[in-house]
Amino acid sequence: MRFLIIGGDAAGMSAASKAKRRMPELEVVVLERSRDVSYSACGMPYNIAEPETGIEELVVRDADTFINKQHIDLRLDHNVESIDPGAKVVRGMEADQKPFTLTYDKLLIATGASPVMPDIPGLDHNGVFPLKSLDHGRRIKQFIGMKDVQRAVIIGMGYVGLEMCEALRARGIEVAMVKPGTRFLPWMNPELSRVVSLTATKNSVAMHAGQAINSIVTHKDSMRVRCDTVDLDADMVIVASGVRPNSEFAMDAGLATGISDSISVDDQLRTSDPDIYSAGDCADAFHLVTGERCWIPLALRANRAGWAVADNVCGVETRLDGVVGTAVFKFFDLEIARTGLTPREAEAAGFDPVEVVVENSSKAHAQKGSTAIYTAMTGDKNTGRLLGVQMVGQQGVAHRINAPAVALHNRMDVKGFFQTDFAYAPPFGPVWDPLLTAANQLLKKLGA
Amino acid sequence: MRFLIIGGDAAGMSAASKAKRRMPELEVVVLERSRDVSYSACGMPYNIAEPETGIEELVVRDADTFINKQHIDLRLDHNVESIDPGAKVVRGMEADQKPFTLTYDKLLIATGASPVMPDIPGLDHNGVFPLKSLDHGRRIKQFIGMKDVQRAVIIGMGYVGLEMCEALRARGIEVAMVKPGTRFLPWMNPELSRVVSLTATKNSVAMHAGQAINSIVTHKDSMRVRCDTVDLDADMVIVASGVRPNSEFAMDAGLATGISDSISVDDQLRTSDPDIYSAGDCADAFHLVTGERCWIPLALRANRAGWAVADNVCGVETRLDGVVGTAVFKFFDLEIARTGLTPREAEAAGFDPVEVVVENSSKAHAQKGSTAIYTAMTGDKNTGRLLGVQMVGQQGVAHRINAPAVALHNRMDVKGFFQTDFAYAPPFGPVWDPLLTAANQLLKKLGA
Repeated sequence: MRFLIIGGDAAGMSAASKAKRRMPELEVVVLERSRDVSYSACGMPYNIAEPETGIEELVVRDADTFINKQHIDLRLDHNVESIDPGAKVVRGMEADQKPFTLTYDKLLIATGASPVMPDIPGLDHNGVFPLKSLDHGRRIKQFIGMKDVQRAVIIGMGYVGLEMCEALRARGIEVAMVKPGTRFLPWMNPELSRVVSLTATKNSVAMHAGQAINSIVTHKDSMRVRCDTVDLDADMVIVASGVRPNSEFAMDAGLATGISDSISVDDQLRTSDPDIYSAGDCADAFHLVTGERCWIPLALRANRAGWAVADNVCGVETRLDGVVGTAVFKFFDLEIARTGLTPREAEAAGFDPVEVVVENSSKAHAQKGSTAIYTAMTGDKNTGRLLGVQMVGQQGVAHRINAPAVALHNRMDVKGFFQTDFAYAPPFGPVWDPLLTAANQLLKKLGA
Repeated sequence: MRFLIIGGDAAGMSAASKAKRRMPELEVVVLERSRDVSYSACGMPYNIAEPETGIEELVVRDADTFINKQHIDLRLDHNVESIDPGAKVVRGMEADQKPFTLTYDKLLIATGASPVMPDIPGLDHNGVFPLKSLDHGRRIKQFIGMKDVQRAVIIGMGYVGLEMCEALRARGIEVAMVKPGTRFLPWMNPELSRVVSLTATKNSVAMHAGQAINSIVTHKDSMRVRCDTVDLDADMVIVASGVRPNSEFAMDAGLATGISDSISVDDQLRTSDPDIYSAGDCADAFHLVTGERCWIPLALRANRAGWAVADNVCGVETRLDGVVGTAVFKFFDLEIARTGLTPREAEAAGFDPVEVVVENSSKAHAQKGSTAIYTAMTGDKNTGRLLGVQMVGQQGVAHRINAPAVALHNRMDVKGFFQTDFAYAPPFGPVWDPLLTAANQLLKKLGA
């Protein structure tokens, strides 16, 4: 039996490795269009921040190991162009434009996502980069080193944009961030996003929200990003305007797609064709709070889904519960985290959301070195159910968010969550953890 | 109506304050045997570590505020000696040996716990201290300052002993720890307790487990702690051999007591007398994993139970789910946390426990400054249920433990817990969080 996998990153290589562990006799073929497999994409900003560290340090396992130690038939420079589900055939091109055709018994589409490139004249200038693949990271890093970059403009203010902002500031580069939308972090409670915004200012980052970007033009030896009411000079431009799923040939093959054109999968990661699976940033998931399909491309889900596909291909039935949208990122000295729904998302999903924001201390009364933790918590007025949490702070945010994530998996109400037995010691928080204080305030507002 | 409260610390003052907020017209009388109320007892070791900080900084709210701002009839130096539930009367002595008698409509016994003083000749020497009340902390701090303490012996190796060890080392004092039991942290998985033990050694703390302590004798200008095979010289001795509930007059009054003589309460904190409540370190709780009564005296539970008593006294029915035994403490650069049952406790509760230990990194692949996190996770072979987690590490342990605590509240199985959607970013952990990796290993061992 041949298990064919399109895409050699988190989901694809997780599936390939696990399938080989489960069934060593299985023929596992992976087609990867680049020459890079199995690297920590999320680690790129941190690597770019360090001039002395090679980008290759991000490679978790190299092609040679997959091929020779794990006996996976990994084919680099293989760009898939179409799938024929009827004939169970995949077609594409190798690097030298040599066409290839491959049959499969089971197919996994793990093609990931690509950066959204906004429609701006001048994106083709030398020095304009998206950041998604390892090769993007490699080229950005080389460019900074070669061109003595002094000023950078980042288009977009999402996770990747903010992480790149911190990385470039660490290299001593002046950074301006710009985006057409008027709200800085539109999904975040305004009281919390103000804290993040203040941190940008403290770190001398110029923030230009609500600026349409009209063009990128050459200017002296470098570039100028022309916006509505401001022009930003830059030696380098990073485009971080979000990603979209690589689902074109899945759509062409007639597979069902949904939200943002992500590939629709069931809880066993099967697409609308029972012999074709999809996993990773190109596939959707079930959201445990809304009860609807969602598209939240994150690394843990990609790895988890890759494993589940391998199980199912090998005959070990594995179903995934779904996701609750738990995410964290670092921005200078801040930890920023969320799980579940924002009030706006909750409303769209038919809930009657009520939100509270509490400010708390990261340590107990009289402890030195305490900093502020801001928690926004949302519950449903009708049912009392916990719907979502957002947190921002310098200490103790990143790992705190997983407790409400577990609560969301269990569909807890705020009352039940408030009863949970949290750990307490003075160096790590107040007796009433910020999450419990938020739950208590929310209970009052819910009238429970 | 008079709501009479015996004990002015966490549970007692939480109950008093909340009752006054709920029902300003309620007469709330608090009898406190010392002159200290509402202080952060858990903060004492950290305060003792800092010579320049007064012990009074630990006071969260002073008597004057309770009396004059909150209109609570707080009576200091009132030592209760007996309760007569039939007559609904409490009797005791004021500081000047003046007897007092007070009637009640509703009574809360929040007398806390006292240090267990082992039966060792010489405990009455000047320079031998337990650490439970603020006055103990005050006297220890004064003694260190006055006596130029160079060497201390700590009897006991529990949370308080270890926290005091760190505090005294911070003051430049040589510390030896000693206890009769042979295992260092008997509740902890040996692989994890070895990490803690190594940290003691790195910080030049002499650890003497398995040493019966025979006597404390004067020796030159200071003391000598005579043990089975070793003698330990000390300018100061801290007795941290655990605590026992202050339940004597509750027992004398015929109230039901249970585990370790703690006062038995139902989910509304009522004792066997419906007009008498108990909360805090003197009362028991329902354990959500074992389904049995337990006695785990911790600060969050005391505060929570105090609030619940106030609600119930004020006619707002409040029931507490119970506890799962979540706790954390700091020991030098280590965070040490647990929730739920140890394998031994699980076995005693009728489970068939299976445990795994995993070592993980605190940060993702290729991130700088990563340290080790050790996780021990226990599940039930029969049902697959998650039973308990212990963690030790330099980063990211303290707040991680609350995620499995929430899982225990929801009686999750290991399979369900493994499916939870955790946050990931490279500075904060690997893609597969240590807790998920442990759950995955445990699933294999459970044969699930």
